[in-house]
Amino acid sequence: MSDGLNLSRRIRRTPYTDRVEAAGVRGFSVVNHMLLPKAFQPTVEQDYWHLRTHAQIWDVSCQRQVDISGPDAARLVQWMTPRNIGGAKPGDCLYVPIIDADAGLINDPVLLKLAEDHFWLSIADSDVLLYAKGLAIGAGMDVRVTEPDVSPLAVQGPKAVDLMADLFGAAIRDLGFFKFGWFDFQGTKQLIARSGYSRQGGYEIYLNGGSLGSALWDAVWQAGQPYNITPGCPNLIERIEGGLFSYGNEMTRDNNPLEIGLGKFCTLDGSIDYIGSQALRRIATEGIRRDIRGVTFDGGPCPTCSSPWPVMVGALKVGQITSGIWSPRLKTNVGLSLIDTGYDDIGQPVTVHSRDGLARVGQITSLPM
Amino acid sequence: MSDGLNLSRRIRRTPYTDRVEAAGVRGFSVVNHMLLPKAFQPTVEQDYWHLRTHAQIWDVSCQRQVDISGPDAARLVQWMTPRNIGGAKPGDCLYVPIIDADAGLINDPVLLKLAEDHFWLSIADSDVLLYAKGLAIGAGMDVRVTEPDVSPLAVQGPKAVDLMADLFGAAIRDLGFFKFGWFDFQGTKQLIARSGYSRQGGYEIYLNGGSLGSALWDAVWQAGQPYNITPGCPNLIERIEGGLFSYGNEMTRDNNPLEIGLGKFCTLDGSIDYIGSQALRRIATEGIRRDIRGVTFDGGPCPTCSSPWPVMVGALKVGQITSGIWSPRLKTNVGLSLIDTGYDDIGQPVTVHSRDGLARVGQITSLPM
Repeated sequence: MSDGLNLSRRIRRTPYTDRVEAAGVRGFSVVNHMLLPKAFQPTVEQDYWHLRTHAQIWDVSCQRQVDISGPDAARLVQWMTPRNIGGAKPGDCLYVPIIDADAGLINDPVLLKLAEDHFWLSIADSDVLLYAKGLAIGAGMDVRVTEPDVSPLAVQGPKAVDLMADLFGAAIRDLGFFKFGWFDFQGTKQLIARSGYSRQGGYEIYLNGGSLGSALWDAVWQAGQPYNITPGCPNLIERIEGGLFSYGNEMTRDNNPLEIGLGKFCTLDGSIDYIGSQALRRIATEGIRRDIRGVTFDGGPCPTCSSPWPVMVGALKVGQITSGIWSPRLKTNVGLSLIDTGYDDIGQPVTVHSRDGLARVGQITSLPM
Repeated sequence: MSDGLNLSRRIRRTPYTDRVEAAGVRGFSVVNHMLLPKAFQPTVEQDYWHLRTHAQIWDVSCQRQVDISGPDAARLVQWMTPRNIGGAKPGDCLYVPIIDADAGLINDPVLLKLAEDHFWLSIADSDVLLYAKGLAIGAGMDVRVTEPDVSPLAVQGPKAVDLMADLFGAAIRDLGFFKFGWFDFQGTKQLIARSGYSRQGGYEIYLNGGSLGSALWDAVWQAGQPYNITPGCPNLIERIEGGLFSYGNEMTRDNNPLEIGLGKFCTLDGSIDYIGSQALRRIATEGIRRDIRGVTFDGGPCPTCSSPWPVMVGALKVGQITSGIWSPRLKTNVGLSLIDTGYDDIGQPVTVHSRDGLARVGQITSLPM
């Protein structure tokens, strides 16, 4: 599952890394040039059951913010995404795929609208800041593009609501899904959103000011004691079952948003102007050639999927597993794959060729599983 | 030195990773969303002595190429860097700092001029491809910006020339430093440059076609047997002593090229038009406030420098160590730091506060050490 990671300043520590290390982290990944804790409990399975039952604290600082402000901010943000952001209000979070001129996915951030002329893009693993800077410089737009000292800390799990109400007040219970508000923490105003990279509910605290990192971690930890809180991280089993895709895994620049099931976020009627609109409308007209699906496959717990595994129907490759792991709940391996149309019906029998050389019998499933 | 790294497709394997694993790699870093091997020999010190004496094979595929081609390619590349590329010829490599409108460093790639309208930027750790795409889209330039299937394999060390001459023919001896040529490999034409991220000499083979990865590795390995070849990687001791800086460590967007000692690559007379020229000329006029230096410091071998360590003159912080390690040759710790002007004279006594709590006595040095 893990190998040695050499540390350096370039792989940035977060405001919570000291606490994460004290909590016994066993492994990291690297996202946006920053450490993302990836393992705490003895096994990913224990972590999974705990996440579905209690509350967890996650250092997701690597979800960096690209801060876009100024007179042309709204125009730049709209130009970057096929999703119509015209109706968004301050306090709204919007999932906004970002594509290039060929409709290839560059990132799939969450947009936070702070004001009419001020936005954050809470990004997956690619330097959206450089793309936004390039666009703004190239087009001569009047905007400022920066990476602020903002480091999200997630509180996830079914007990997250009670925990957060204890810590920040009962009003936080009324925060709608994908809405954010401002809450007091030690004399500061902090942005908290009802969101997170799991299907178990919870919040993300967009801590502004890294020097408060340990204090915030400790406060959440203390408030979490009645709720059996543990340190955690995005859980691979839970996110695959839940159909939560990961940029760089399920989607790259080789993919368009329509085949990743993101058509509902794409404006195709020509009513807004964005980069890649022509390419995307052409793809929509011609029809997609593959579609994202779940795959279950047998043969006992599979190894770590660190490069794609072929998904076969007979001798024909119809897809590739881009994330896969054993599910202790479904008692089978679960994976995500783009599947060629014609072979993407739910229940379609397939064979998965995992890295260990096994040909594993499986079938196409809907998502979430 | 290392911690667990969780693997996934997003952290891309390279055409050589299978061989690297078979060769007993002990740790990786992540650069440009790709694995960079970081440790082979039992210690970094053994690796260091070997690199200075024999020949090594390095998987530096993470030096991704940003391919820029088309009628506006030369204009776009020149716009991205303060270095005047007007005199470059096909076959030239140029070190080209890339800065933003505030003169903050975005990357410090090597530019390879393939043709008058075709360039590669061989990049350090940031998504220059997205910046170039943004600029091109924003300014409506007629260029194509892609990441080709090109994965550099470096052969470094004093015996690299003989090894490469055995493998690719004697003509490779005549290749000038920072020049490239085209050489045959198994019926393909491959770009090979006299370059590399060490001061020990050598070449980088820009393998075009990942499916040839194992074959190329094996061919170099075989040819390297008379030269005591070992698998290696950029060596932290050697690069610090040699004054080779690392983007993300010694320099970030918070730094301008003048303070990193890159003034010789910056055109400040207004003769060319590039992004950040105004800011850079203002900095040049006002004078830089800090300058990159070497630092030696005692107190026995220092721990891994994973976040900057203060460099003090008395009670005053005058800099921070961004890379540091014990040098077995100099018998002291060696580090790199920006040092405030006024305290940057060679021989200036300083104290380095390393992560282990020690206040280590040291002094400012020139580079290379």
